[in-house]
Amino acid sequence: MSKPMGLLLNCDLGESFGAWTQGVDHQVMPYIDQASIACGFHAGDPQVIKQTLALAAEHGVAVGAHPSYPDLAGFGRRSMKLAATELIAILQYQIAALAGMAQNIGLSLSYVKPHGALYNDMMANGQLRSAVMQAIAECHQPLAFMLQATADWETHRSEAEAFGIQPLFEAFADRCYDDSGALLSRAESGAVLSREKMLDQVQQLQEDGSVTTVSGKRLTLVADTLCVHGDNPEAVGAIGEIRQLLSP
Amino acid sequence: MSKPMGLLLNCDLGESFGAWTQGVDHQVMPYIDQASIACGFHAGDPQVIKQTLALAAEHGVAVGAHPSYPDLAGFGRRSMKLAATELIAILQYQIAALAGMAQNIGLSLSYVKPHGALYNDMMANGQLRSAVMQAIAECHQPLAFMLQATADWETHRSEAEAFGIQPLFEAFADRCYDDSGALLSRAESGAVLSREKMLDQVQQLQEDGSVTTVSGKRLTLVADTLCVHGDNPEAVGAIGEIRQLLSP
Amino acid sequence: MSKPMGLLLNCDLGESFGAWTQGVDHQVMPYIDQASIACGFHAGDPQVIKQTLALAAEHGVAVGAHPSYPDLAGFGRRSMKLAATELIAILQYQIAALAGMAQNIGLSLSYVKPHGALYNDMMANGQLRSAVMQAIAECHQPLAFMLQATADWETHRSEAEAFGIQPLFEAFADRCYDDSGALLSRAESGAVLSREKMLDQVQQLQEDGSVTTVSGKRLTLVADTLCVHGDNPEAVGAIGEIRQLLSP
Amino acid sequence: MSKPMGLLLNCDLGESFGAWTQGVDHQVMPYIDQASIACGFHAGDPQVIKQTLALAAEHGVAVGAHPSYPDLAGFGRRSMKLAATELIAILQYQIAALAGMAQNIGLSLSYVKPHGALYNDMMANGQLRSAVMQAIAECHQPLAFMLQATADWETHRSEAEAFGIQPLFEAFADRCYDDSGALLSRAESGAVLSREKMLDQVQQLQEDGSVTTVSGKRLTLVADTLCVHGDNPEAVGAIGEIRQLLSP
Repeated sequence: MSKPMGLLLNCDLGESFGAWTQGVDHQVMPYIDQASIACGFHAGDPQVIKQTLALAAEHGVAVGAHPSYPDLAGFGRRSMKLAATELIAILQYQIAALAGMAQNIGLSLSYVKPHGALYNDMMANGQLRSAVMQAIAECHQPLAFMLQATADWETHRSEAEAFGIQPLFEAFADRCYDDSGALLSRAESGAVLSREKMLDQVQQLQEDGSVTTVSGKRLTLVADTLCVHGDNPEAVGAIGEIRQLLSP
Repeated sequence: MSKPMGLLLNCDLGESFGAWTQGVDHQVMPYIDQASIACGFHAGDPQVIKQTLALAAEHGVAVGAHPSYPDLAGFGRRSMKLAATELIAILQYQIAALAGMAQNIGLSLSYVKPHGALYNDMMANGQLRSAVMQAIAECHQPLAFMLQATADWETHRSEAEAFGIQPLFEAFADRCYDDSGALLSRAESGAVLSREKMLDQVQQLQEDGSVTTVSGKRLTLVADTLCVHGDNPEAVGAIGEIRQLLSP
Repeated sequence: MSKPMGLLLNCDLGESFGAWTQGVDHQVMPYIDQASIACGFHAGDPQVIKQTLALAAEHGVAVGAHPSYPDLAGFGRRSMKLAATELIAILQYQIAALAGMAQNIGLSLSYVKPHGALYNDMMANGQLRSAVMQAIAECHQPLAFMLQATADWETHRSEAEAFGIQPLFEAFADRCYDDSGALLSRAESGAVLSREKMLDQVQQLQEDGSVTTVSGKRLTLVADTLCVHGDNPEAVGAIGEIRQLLSP
Repeated sequence: MSKPMGLLLNCDLGESFGAWTQGVDHQVMPYIDQASIACGFHAGDPQVIKQTLALAAEHGVAVGAHPSYPDLAGFGRRSMKLAATELIAILQYQIAALAGMAQNIGLSLSYVKPHGALYNDMMANGQLRSAVMQAIAECHQPLAFMLQATADWETHRSEAEAFGIQPLFEAFADRCYDDSGALLSRAESGAVLSREKMLDQVQQLQEDGSVTTVSGKRLTLVADTLCVHGDNPEAVGAIGEIRQLLSP
């Protein structure tokens, strides 16, 4: 049931846009296994996508599409109420753009991870999650579906399998979990772990397939991949330490 | 040298956007051989693209990408000065989005036809034409390049062959040509042909591989496909007559 | 309490965008008292705004800003979850753009009517309504606030007065009301009134300050203005008949 | 003829967009006299505009609109071919948005400075410059027109006066001039002055109303204001030194 071995590292990259730069992608790419690349609807533009794909190819990193609500001005962090058919088309457009550009340089897109508000809304709303999975399932190539590892992982696995797609559960290295397997809101103290606690959590996920929740309870968390952040040089330091822990 | 047989019909479709409807795609699709589909940068949105692709599939119509400068507000009719690397990335993004969405329903993208100001600028500027051809040549699948049939067709064919791509020359059914093989500007009288003259021009292109220019001169025009318009029901009537003429 | 006299007619105009045309503004403008003009965030662009303002000036029609969520692709019909400070800034930008362009041709903006999903969300959510009213109240010029006439009109009037702004209640000529003063959903039969019933409803609003609800109950409805639609020539015919009824 | 006294300092500010931050506006604002604020078409969004205006108000800095071609993805640095009526409407929309939001907090917009490619295109093209001046002249409030100080300053002054608007000539503190009064292209060595040469140039502009060109020639340059850059902390240091020089 638990999956203590082989945790991968994934990071959201390609989040610059036009003249605006975001993140330190060149520093992060050497440490990670999976790059979730913005598709132009919340961040990223055709040139940024192309450069990020080339960087992933250079470092042998697997690439995933990181599609979003259509909301550049809000960085995809604002919930939008879309009809299911509309959302499905919007996701397939983004996935196709990224997959084709990847294929142009010999890469094969391997997964889809929804971004920002869409990610959160989809974790909370089964209908929305179904729309996302349908969007992925209708794509011509097999694509895994990256979603949050929670206490409901078995339900989510069944849902994905019903759509014929493979789930990839991700845990968060630096965030504190509550007893339901949800992330503590950033508004609450202790929501973001210290460097030391983060490394403890990674080790426990890796060795025991569990986390210790805010109340001190042990919670089984089936995770395939760890989400790390590459926003700034300090964050990159943390990625290096996690990498060292996972692949000493 | 001339190519009197087998003229195809192509039309620009999928030019609606969100709540705004443009064209009568359902009426046009049954008559044409090739649908040049807007990719979302001057018109079209993910749902419109999906619907247009499905309509093409239903009628067995070949599909092409109709990419543009990034200019929704100007419908891609305003020239923009982009660096070549920028333009190439922008085109590849649009092509990939359309190609992938086509493949999702079992269609294979067959060609690329630049839109509007980009089309005109590219016909006038060899460096820009090279950037467009490089964008197409770098795509992972073979894609033909649809461009205007002019007196320079041999040069253009050589250019395309140097990039390893197949040119598709298009002539305009309803536009009067000048002696250089350019279209008479719409500002000039006689630029848009009457129904009768249009049918004469189509017949001459089909049977003789030539047009009669505004000065009365016979001009050889190597054309693979005829561009027709589907903006309104009247235009659709003309398409029906041309179809009848080409495939009686 | 009721307000049987002096009903005005308002219509949403300026909803074209770039090459896409929507509505028959030239036919509608002669019949109405108030033009609610799209500000470029769900429809309208600088040229369309300028032309619509000039048309209003020509016909002596009062102008209002018709701001929206930032959602061109969805025509402002998709709910978006924005922080209050964000929404307020977005509304003030749109209002300022329209007010200044009006002033450039000697017009004075007189009111603000939120559009589409924002309008519906605001009628259902008091916090959102407060944000809209704060946005209006902070503007340098006095601007009325157009909102839906419902059974809660007294509450809404108090809210507006607390912000120091004047409410303008609008009723819908062609829509059937339920007993709570809400519009019957378009999904239900009878939601959109026949021409004859529409004229009866207008007459009752005008003479008695009330509507007859779907259940046959008389409901007092305090309305300052009637919303009419100018999407197509048929709709314009209805406006003409309503105008005739109100100002015989 | 020369104008050795009273040089002002202006800086382009408010160039963040959504989640992307650009510039160090808080550090720059205390040193400058005029803030040219992006209007949302190449950078800036309603919240950024509101914050930048508030910051200008706090420091008693005059505010100008910094409108652009409609090109967020290109930061307004890509030339676009717009019809004059289209450009005029686009400029007036941006100016109105900024002017109204300024007025909401008690500020009065004082000038307009075109941005990026529009600025360069307008300096090179008299018809485009006329369109910009017409856009400004048609605004309901008097607005000065900030443009580059070149050897043609007398012609430009006459043009502006013909439109009834006041020109504000700006010189560049840190750029080397050629003998025609144009800036040396950044591609050429010596185009961007060292800190020491920059301060010499500022002093010469201030005291003698002239610059020393790349060839060593003295060129009279009538300047009202000096353009400085606030992109990074180092640039801010230079602004402080220039301020010290101008107002010791």
